Order: sequence, then structure tokens, then C-alpha cells
Amino acid sequence: MAKLFTRPETMLIREVGPVTPCGRDVSTVAGDPLEVHALLVRDGHDELAAQLRCRRIDPLATADERRWQHLPMAVEHSGLARAIWSPDVVGRHEFEVRAWVDRVGSWRRDLRRRAEADEDLTVEFEVGAQLLERLVRGAAKADRPRLRAAVEQLRDSTCSERVRLTAALDDAVGAIASAIPDPDDVTASARHTVRVDRELAVRGAWYEFFPRSEGGFVEGANSWDRLEAIAEGGFDVVYLPPVHPIGHAHRKGRNNTLVAGPDDVGSPWAIGAAEGGHTAVHPDLGTLADLERFIARASELGLEIALDYALQCSPDHPWVREHPEWFSHRPDGTIRYAENPPKKYQDIYPIDFWPERDEDRRALWTACRDVLEFWIERGVSVFRVDNPHTKPLSFWEWIIRDVQDAHPQVVFLSEAFTDPPMMHSLGEIGFSQSYTYFTWRTTKEELTSYGEELAHAPAAAWFRPNLWPTTPDILAPPLQDGSRNAFVARAVLAATMAPSWGIYSGYELCENDPYPGKEEYRFSEKYELKHRDHDDPSSSWPLLAQLNRIRRAHPALWRMASLRFHHVDNGDVIAYSHRRTVDGVDDTVVVVVNLAADEVREATVHLDLAALGLADRPGFEVRDELSGESWRWGPNGNYVRLDPAERVAHIFVVHPD
Amino acid sequence: MAKLFTRPETMLIREVGPVTPCGRDVSTVAGDPLEVHALLVRDGHDELAAQLRCRRIDPLATADERRWQHLPMAVEHSGLARAIWSPDVVGRHEFEVRAWVDRVGSWRRDLRRRAEADEDLTVEFEVGAQLLERLVRGAAKADRPRLRAAVEQLRDSTCSERVRLTAALDDAVGAIASAIPDPDDVTASARHTVRVDRELAVRGAWYEFFPRSEGGFVEGANSWDRLEAIAEGGFDVVYLPPVHPIGHAHRKGRNNTLVAGPDDVGSPWAIGAAEGGHTAVHPDLGTLADLERFIARASELGLEIALDYALQCSPDHPWVREHPEWFSHRPDGTIRYAENPPKKYQDIYPIDFWPERDEDRRALWTACRDVLEFWIERGVSVFRVDNPHTKPLSFWEWIIRDVQDAHPQVVFLSEAFTDPPMMHSLGEIGFSQSYTYFTWRTTKEELTSYGEELAHAPAAAWFRPNLWPTTPDILAPPLQDGSRNAFVARAVLAATMAPSWGIYSGYELCENDPYPGKEEYRFSEKYELKHRDHDDPSSSWPLLAQLNRIRRAHPALWRMASLRFHHVDNGDVIAYSHRRTVDGVDDTVVVVVNLAADEVREATVHLDLAALGLADRPGFEVRDELSGESWRWGPNGNYVRLDPAERVAHIFVVHPD
Repeated sequence: MAKLFTRPETMLIREVGPVTPCGRDVSTVAGDPLEVHALLVRDGHDELAAQLRCRRIDPLATADERRWQHLPMAVEHSGLARAIWSPDVVGRHEFEVRAWVDRVGSWRRDLRRRAEADEDLTVEFEVGAQLLERLVRGAAKADRPRLRAAVEQLRDSTCSERVRLTAALDDAVGAIASAIPDPDDVTASARHTVRVDRELAVRGAWYEFFPRSEGGFVEGANSWDRLEAIAEGGFDVVYLPPVHPIGHAHRKGRNNTLVAGPDDVGSPWAIGAAEGGHTAVHPDLGTLADLERFIARASELGLEIALDYALQCSPDHPWVREHPEWFSHRPDGTIRYAENPPKKYQDIYPIDFWPERDEDRRALWTACRDVLEFWIERGVSVFRVDNPHTKPLSFWEWIIRDVQDAHPQVVFLSEAFTDPPMMHSLGEIGFSQSYTYFTWRTTKEELTSYGEELAHAPAAAWFRPNLWPTTPDILAPPLQDGSRNAFVARAVLAATMAPSWGIYSGYELCENDPYPGKEEYRFSEKYELKHRDHDDPSSSWPLLAQLNRIRRAHPALWRMASLRFHHVDNGDVIAYSHRRTVDGVDDTVVVVVNLAADEVREATVHLDLAALGLADRPGFEVRDELSGESWRWGPNGNYVRLDPAERVAHIFVVHPD
Repeated sequence: MAKLFTRPETMLIREVGPVTPCGRDVSTVAGDPLEVHALLVRDGHDELAAQLRCRRIDPLATADERRWQHLPMAVEHSGLARAIWSPDVVGRHEFEVRAWVDRVGSWRRDLRRRAEADEDLTVEFEVGAQLLERLVRGAAKADRPRLRAAVEQLRDSTCSERVRLTAALDDAVGAIASAIPDPDDVTASARHTVRVDRELAVRGAWYEFFPRSEGGFVEGANSWDRLEAIAEGGFDVVYLPPVHPIGHAHRKGRNNTLVAGPDDVGSPWAIGAAEGGHTAVHPDLGTLADLERFIARASELGLEIALDYALQCSPDHPWVREHPEWFSHRPDGTIRYAENPPKKYQDIYPIDFWPERDEDRRALWTACRDVLEFWIERGVSVFRVDNPHTKPLSFWEWIIRDVQDAHPQVVFLSEAFTDPPMMHSLGEIGFSQSYTYFTWRTTKEELTSYGEELAHAPAAAWFRPNLWPTTPDILAPPLQDGSRNAFVARAVLAATMAPSWGIYSGYELCENDPYPGKEEYRFSEKYELKHRDHDDPSSSWPLLAQLNRIRRAHPALWRMASLRFHHVDNGDVIAYSHRRTVDGVDDTVVVVVNLAADEVREATVHLDLAALGLADRPGFEVRDELSGESWRWGPNGNYVRLDPAERVAHIFVVHPD
């Protein structure tokens, strides 16, 4: 609200973006262009000018990074001001838009009109000289002589009007002047923050396996060979379910039965036993030192280890004894176990994030943070966060900021399958990326509308998807008893629709056995060990590796926003593309998938050629990166035949002539 | 940002509305329902509850009005919370949403499930007793005994489980409990403000005339008779162009010629002469006392006088001499007159709202405010603001708030015909209503898309239109040399599309003579007196009066948001409706207009019956309020024939059987 006794602003800077609806950090990736825009509204008809000011603000910022940088903004006649900013340092940044009346620009515009109308310009030359003169101090040192010379020439009444006019309309002088904020009157927008993440926050290939099924972290165990295979398969991240001691109280048996036998290994998510809690390693997996060596070996192979961050405790967790105040108690004195009446999860005590005494809350939250710091110190920079939607948003906002302030490289994947407002809020308050509903989106219509939402809905600016065809918790209908073709099709979709995807071990062997009436696996690995034949000749592992090679080779596949669907005249065949220009090189990938994976489908694909920059081409080559075959496609519909005996999908790279 | 050492909020309250994009007051009208909504996002599966808190905050608010009122909000499963608030006192108000976990509601929900699963409920009864017990203090006094009784019964182990369960699930107790904010943990949204205007801010029929053409304000002048006729014609506001002394320097002659003859009266917008400035009355019109009597007479007739608030000065205005610092000077010492090079307006000095010294700015802004106060004291509560887009937005924001803080009844009409961002910004920062592009929207397509925008675009929440077919400045194409039919058609459109419309004198006589090559009148009344024959038998005055009668009789026509267009199979025939339910009475008006006003058009009108609440009717009666004729319409297309010899429009009132 304008007040009479403080000088109000002379301009309204509105619709500044990008921002998030709740005013949290906008997220971007180092090096990505970020379009900052604002609408300048001011009375009168003067020309307006604006600049973008930006700087890094997190605690790790150097003195140099903390200094404001200035980028000129292009201002359209409508008042729309825009600039492309590509912050290239990981960390938190802020920006503001500063705008002012371009008095010199307005004067030059009017002077030209006055000259055309043959007005006497004598006074106007002096007007211009005064306007330029007041900008000299704000100009860069190198520009000052030029401005001073222009002032002198405007005042040099010994010159002809023509000469003085030419000096006045010198575009170089105009450009210098327009870029200098008005010394007396600049309006600044509110400041907005941007979290600049590293590439892995948006793009990565994840592979999940249970280390206990592969012999743990002890050198020589099968899991060490697995690391090498996973690296060769082109994955970026190895995600391990919890590696901590597992509780004995109320331990679940195979197939989630209530009573465990003496040999049942228990669910890794029932964290904590006499051996320790969230910072301990399950004795069967090896020692902390073993795990550290394992992490180091992954790093040598170019892999990162993602640990599971599951904030809950088995009744045997040391915290239960040491900090009963961190748990909720019933009137009879017992600790409240997890339940969703009438379902009971007696092997799990949820943490109460709001103990009655605030010092207990601070101690608890700090302890949770220290768990992350413990693993970060040991080389872990990626956390898959279990069920974040059952813990407070403000807890996540605090802990993610606190950790990233010291370790901006840390990536948090949200495992929330819940209502969109919660999933989007988790993204907005800090999670780097999230699991999605992709797992259940199977028809062409479902995949198209969900893909559009992930790529283009407003929330796409802060909600980054990671597509998993299966997880240890979910074996959804298309893959229940699904064929190898179905597994291949879903893998192609996950790997090429979004820049992040994940594979849960066993997928390559088409493990498709559902627990009757559920969307889960029978004999789920959550409750027992799995022995897999990684040398099975029918394994799809080579295909997964090929998908990862294609992904790495094609920047078109590196961002979600480039996703675009194309018309296909068959309801079982889906076609979409990604097109991006990076460093001046245009890369276009078109994917066509047969969703009726076990049946032959023929179809005509109608590409939106304008969107692909092919509008005026008579034809172009498409090369299938899966088979190596090439076809020549024309501007109208193009025929495809997807016969499962040969293939269920094309991943075409477009080569214009 | 959540901090560890201050207790963060346990819930995220997002998407609170209504708000404006720049965080200014939302505008509404006293008594209108305002839907306040918010999205509650919280971890876990507990039931959530919310309330709307609201109160009046402007300086005139009584102690009672300043006290928070509480309205319960309905919370959907998605977290969407809603309440209807109908503030009925004109003034500024604020609201916030407060939300909490409905612990009793969640416990009741779970208790029901536990009971169905035959669990032992003993401990849960005590849980509930404790939950209810802590709410007693926050309950209304009348509800406390009931809560206490429920607590006792839950604890009464002499009762059977069945009896205690019945007590626990008592809906009346549940309703009391759910409405009480949690004593330990309530999350509040940010506060947002609402400006509650009186009805005239959104709905009114305006009539503009130049008092000098009718003999001024002296009793016995023709303008006194005009007042009576205007009141009888059903208008609400008489808008007078500036009534102040007119400058002599550079006075414009007839047809805006540069040199005035001795008898030329000058433009009323060249305000100020030796006799005074913005608070003086032109001597030819009478004295200030005459004008006060005129205003009083208007008031007796149920009319309000709207004065023109044009902040600019003729070179003869007293401010030019007394306050040269309020004007912009060129290097040669002359005052800068208005110009848009190469156009010059030497009869006008624009005010410089940003004098170099801030005390000069404060003195200037205060003087501008005092002009409004001067006229408000004399009975004027409506101002038509000339060209507000050429004065600072922050000036308007300050002056409108300052004036309305003391006089909340004052209505400001913005005369800005400029870019939408500026027009909408003026609405957002405080103008009650605005002129629009209606004047230039003539085809069915243009009227439809503009009508949709005015009724349904986001800006419709703070930008209220006033539709004028002509103004002294604008005689747009459809009416240039237009027939009486064209004038009637445009009047019907203006009067029925929007709740505010305006007629500039002479419209009823179909004055249609354009200045060649311009969108203005030839012999414009801005520069000369007009003598009109108000008794001309061909005058459309009776039609205007009829339109105003129809408007007053039909609440359907009182708000913009109810506008809805219907399909007509003829490109020259437009059909739209307004439907509103006020005090339980459903009112529906359907308007059909022939835009090819001088030619017969036949068409089939396809009403969106669902939108009109007629979906399941076999038929209904439509009564034309213009002609008194009735037809029976059926559920499919209905035929209309608009023959200019008979009519150019229908204004149907729908009477369901």
C-alpha cells in the first residue's frame, strides 16, 4: 500500500516468474536456461528498461558469488520484460527484477518524431544533454568518455542541427544509456529464490537391489560383481533398501505373514535392533567399513549409492529405549504402533515428530539430520526417502535445506504415492524428484494425459518425475503375469518418456508373479532372500543397457518439458518425441511403442512436424537406435508395423537431410 | 522457511483465495456471497478441520466489527476447504483461514473401524475421553456440559462397551468437537484483504450530459428538467464533464481547431482560469451554491451526481502560478505542455506527480486529495476519473484508499482505454469500475469473446466493466452514420450484458455524424454547445427508460459473472443469458440481438438448458420484456425472427412451467 510519507514506487512490477505458488525455491539444474519474466506497468508512454539481478545466497557461496550479477532484460511494447539466466553453480540463488523509465530512449524516440515534423530541436538537444549527463556516473568506466562526448556534441551550437541530431540518435550511445538504471528512480520487484541442482536431480538411471540377496557388502560377495554389471549397464545410481539391523519383535514372515519363523529375515524397513539403528549396518551384510569400501568401489565405477531414508523404528530400535519421548504413547503406557484401522503394523513404531516439549522436537529433528550427515560423510549423496507424506512437510523443508546448505550436491527422491497436492507440495518444499503414478498408467490415453501433466502442468516446474515400472512394493496389472514383451515395452516407456527412470532388480528376468488379489509380488523380496540367475540368456539386461546408452547419447531425452505426443491412428500404439537444442545442436528422438505388447499392430504415425522443426522438409531419415535400421519418412503419415516377434518399439533418431 | 528453533507449522495451507495477483484487496459488494477456499496439505491420514476468520479493518470499523468472526469451513477429502462469506458492511475487511487436525473426528472414524473389526476398545475409550477433555475450555459455554457428559460416559466402566461406543459416536458431540480449533496446534494462513463496496460500484445506469448545453446549474435552467427526466428514465448516476473554469491560453476552437474565436467556449477538460481551478465552478454554469442545490435536487430524485476528476491544468490554472514545482519544466524555463510528438496539446499542462523534492510531492498529492474531499463534502460520492493511466498507479492506490478510509461509499470510475495490464492494474489497486473496449466490439465473435473475458477471466474478480456505446470522445464505426436500429441494438447490448452501462447525451437522438477519418463526433460537444430537442418524437428515450426498468426488475442482470453465451446458427444474431438466484428466487433473462440491425435475420437459438436449470423441462415460456409478447420454447432449437421493422432484439424472461 502506497503511503503519503514514504516515497511510493513509480512502477508496478507484476507477474514476476518463475516462482512457485507457495513462494518456495524454484528448482532448476546447473547450466539450464531459466527464463525470468515480469510485466512492467507504468503510467504514460515512456520507454521502459529492466535488468535481472541475481546472486548465490546459500552459506557456501563465495564473496564473489554473493555479489549481484546484472543481466539486461528485453522489454516488449506490452511491458513484458524477459531475460534468460543460466545459473551454473549448484546452490541456492535469488533474483529480482529492477525496472526504470528509459528516459534517454524515450527522448530519442520523440526526437526522431520531432525531427520528422521539422520542429525546432534546440531545446530538445539540451534536454538530451542533461539526460545523458546524469547517467555518466552510473556508466561503466569504459563507456563514460562516449557519453561525455555525446553530451558535448549535443551542446555544440557551432555544429549544424543535422550533425547534432546524428549524434543524438547514435544507437551505440542509446544502447549504453538504456542499460543504465535511472539514478533517481528504480523500482525493484520482490526477491525470489532458485535452487540450482546438479544434473542427477533431474536425470539419472536408477537400479535397485537388495544387497542381502547378493551376499552383502563383504568383498567377494556377488553384489560387488553386480556393481560392475550395473555400471556397464549404463546406470547412474544404485539404490539399496535399508541396510540397517532389522527388528525381531513382531517380525513379519514370508509373504507378510504375522509370525516369522526362526529363519525369516524380516523386512529391512523394520529398522533397528540391539546392533543399532539408522547409522548401523546389518551384521549379515558386513561391517560399516565393508559398506564404505562398497560405496568407494561404486564411485570408482561412476556409480552413486542411494540409501533408503525410512524414518520409523522397529520396537527394538535403540531410540525406542533411549528416547521414548520421540514416540506416541497410548493411555495404557504402550507405544502406539503403526496402524490404519483395522490394519496393524506392529513391527513398526512411527516417530512422533511433534513431542510435547519443544526441546524434544529439536533433539529428534537434529538426530534425524545427523543420520543423513553420518551417511553423507561416508560418501552417500543420494537418498530415497520412504513415505515422506507421513512426516511433516515442515520437517522436510527444514532438513533438506539444512543438509543442502552444507552439501548442495545431495539429491532427495520422494517415495510418495498419494494425493497430487501432497506429492506436489513435497516437490515444492525441497524434494529433488519423486516417484510417480507411471507405474499404474498403462493405456495410451492414460500415458498421454499423465505425460502431458508431468511435462507441462504448472507443477512440472518443481515436481520432477522418476519413472519406475515396478518396485518391491508394486507389481501393477500390465506386468502381473506379463510377457517379456510387456516388460520391454514398459522399460522403453519409462526410459524415454522422462529423464529419470528406475529398475527394481528382477525386472530384467521378467519376474511377474503377483500375490493373488494384490498389486504386490508373491514371495516378495521384502520378506525373504531372492536368488537370481544373472546369466540367464533370456535376460533383458542387454536391452536395459541399450536403453541407457541411447539415453546418454541423446540430450533430447534429458529433460521432461520437451515431451510431446503425436497422433497415431491405432489406440494401442503410442508415439511421442523429445526435441532439444543443446550447444547449438538439434537432437530429436521419436519413440513409438506397441502397448498391446504381444500382438502385431500396424499404424500410421502423424508427427507434428512443425514442433519437430521439420515443417518444410520433403522427407527425413529416421534411424531406429534399437535395431540400427533406417527408414525414410515423409511429411504425411508414416507406416509402422510393430510385430512382437521382431520388436515392440522403435526409438528413432531423426536425421534431417 | 521452517527453522529448527521456532516451532514450524504442522500443516501447509495453500492456494488461499480469493486473492489478487499483486496481493491487493479483492473487491466484492455488500451482501454478495464470497467463496473463500484453501487447500490443506498435511502428512498422515487424519481428518482436517478449518474455519474462516474475518473482520472489518478500515478506520471506520466499530470495536464490534473489528472483532474476529468465525465461519466453519467444509473440508473435502482432497483437503479443499470452503466457506461462503457474505460481508454486508461497506469497508475494508480481512480474512484468514485457520486449520487443524480434527483429532476427535479421526478418532471417531478409527473407532468405528475398530469396532467393526471387533477390537478391544477399552484403551480407545480413554483416548477419546482425553481428546474431548482438552476441548472443553475452547467450547462455547452452552456446549461444555455435553462434552463433559461424553467424557464421563466414555470413562464409565460400569457401562457396557455398546453403551460407551454409542456415546463415543454421538454425532452431535462430534460436530461440537470438530468445530473447536485444536488447543495446541492451529495453522493460520496469511491474511488477505477484501474491499466491500456498495451496490453502485458494480451496478448502475449512468447518463452523461454537458450542463453548459442545458443552461448550467442556475435554478430554472433546462438542466433541472433534465434531472427529472433522467430520474424518470431510470438512471442512477448523472455524470457531468468538468464544471470548472476553462483556460483561455491556447483554447481550442470548434472541432478541436488550434485557434479559438472569441465566442468559442473551450474544452471543459482545459481546467482552470483566473476564476479558479478544480474546486471552482465555471461562472457561466452558476455559483458553487447553485451546483450544491443542483446536487441536492438530484439526490431528492434518487440520482447521484458523478463529477469528472481530471488531474491536469490549463496554463491559466491557479496552481500553475502558485505551484510551478508541480509541473515539469524544459531547459528554457517553459512548462512542458502535453504532447505525444509530433502532436501537441498546448492548452494542457500535465501535472508532474514526482516533483524533485519529496515535500512538494506530498503537498501536491494532498492538494489532489483535498479536491475530492471538497466535492465529497458537497454531496458528491461518484467520480469519473479522466485518463488515470497517465498518472502513477501508486498515486491512485494512495488517494483511493485515503478517501475511502473516510468515505467508503465513494465510487471511482476509471476512464482508461489502454493496454489490458494497465486497465486491470487500475482495477486491482482500487478503482471501483472501468470503461471498457465494448465501444469497439461489434461483431458477434468480438462481443462473445470480450463478454467471456469480462465475465470469466481471472481479472473479472477485480475489474468491473461499465459499458458505454458512445462517449464525447468516441463515435465508433457501428454507430458512425448508424441507423436508429443500430443505436437501439447497441443500447440493448450495453444495458443487458453488464450490470453497469452509460449513455452519453444525444444517443437517444441517434447523433451519428462522425468527424471524417476519426472515431469522433463532428462538431463535438467538447468544443461547443449543443442544442437538442428532447421532445423529438423519434427519440429513443422511452427505450432507454424501458431498458432501465427491465434492469431494475431483474436481479439476473445485476452481476457480470452470470453472463453466458448460447449458440445461434446465424453469425449476425447473438444470444446470451444471465441467471441468478437471489433470496431463493431464480431469475433468468435471455437476450437475443440482431447485429445486422437494418436487415431481417432469422435464426435458431440453441440455449444451454443445463446452464439455465431447464435441462429436464419439456418446454417453458419466454416473455419478451420489450414487447410484452410471449412464446413457448422447447428443449431443442427455437426459432426467432428479428425484423428491424418490428424489433432488433428480444429481452426474454424465462418462466418455467
